[in-house]
Amino acid sequence: MMVLISYDVSTVSAAGKTRLRKVAKECQNHAQRVQNSVFEADLDYSSFLKLKDSLLKLINPEEDSLRFYYLGNNWNKKIEHIGAEKTYDPEGVIII
Amino acid sequence: MMVLISYDVSTVSAAGKTRLRKVAKECQNHAQRVQNSVFEADLDYSSFLKLKDSLLKLINPEEDSLRFYYLGNNWNKKIEHIGAEKTYDPEGVIII
Repeated sequence: MMVLISYDVSTVSAAGKTRLRKVAKECQNHAQRVQNSVFEADLDYSSFLKLKDSLLKLINPEEDSLRFYYLGNNWNKKIEHIGAEKTYDPEGVIII
Repeated sequence: MMVLISYDVSTVSAAGKTRLRKVAKECQNHAQRVQNSVFEADLDYSSFLKLKDSLLKLINPEEDSLRFYYLGNNWNKKIEHIGAEKTYDPEGVIII
C-alpha cells in the first residue's frame, strides 16, 4: 500500500528541532522523501502501522501534526511532479 | 475534484523567498492550507487548471518543485490527521 506522509513539526524550541530531526530520520528509514517534509511509504500494512506508531511517539501532538493520505492502488497515476527532482524514485531501493 | 498540492521552494536566495511567498499566497487563495507547505484544493477541473498554471509560472523549475496528488472521490476517507490542528476545515469557506 502507498501512503503519503506529511508533517509539520514546530521548531521554535530546541526540543522541537530534535523532534523534527527524529521524525525526518524515521521517515527516511522507511519511506521515500519526495519533498522536504513529504514522504511516500510503499509498505505492507503491518510495516506501515509500525512506522505510524513510531511517528506518533516522536511528535508533540499539541504543537506538531502528521497527515497520512492513503493513495490506494494505481497510485502512480495519481501523482504529478513538476520541477526540481531530488533523489526521488518510487520504485528505488531504500538504503537503511 | 480534490487535489493535494505540496511544494518545495528553495529559499537560499532573496528571489527564492519571494517565490515562496507568492506560491503560498496563490495556494491560500484557492485551497485549504493543511500544513506549512501542503494544501488541499477542492476545485472544479477548470479552476484547478488555472491554479496549476499560475503555480507553474511562479516557481523556478530548476530549484523548486510542485507535487499534485489527485485524490479522486471519497477523498475524505483517505486522509488521516494527527496532532495540532490549524485552521483546517475541508468543507470550510475560503476567505480570499
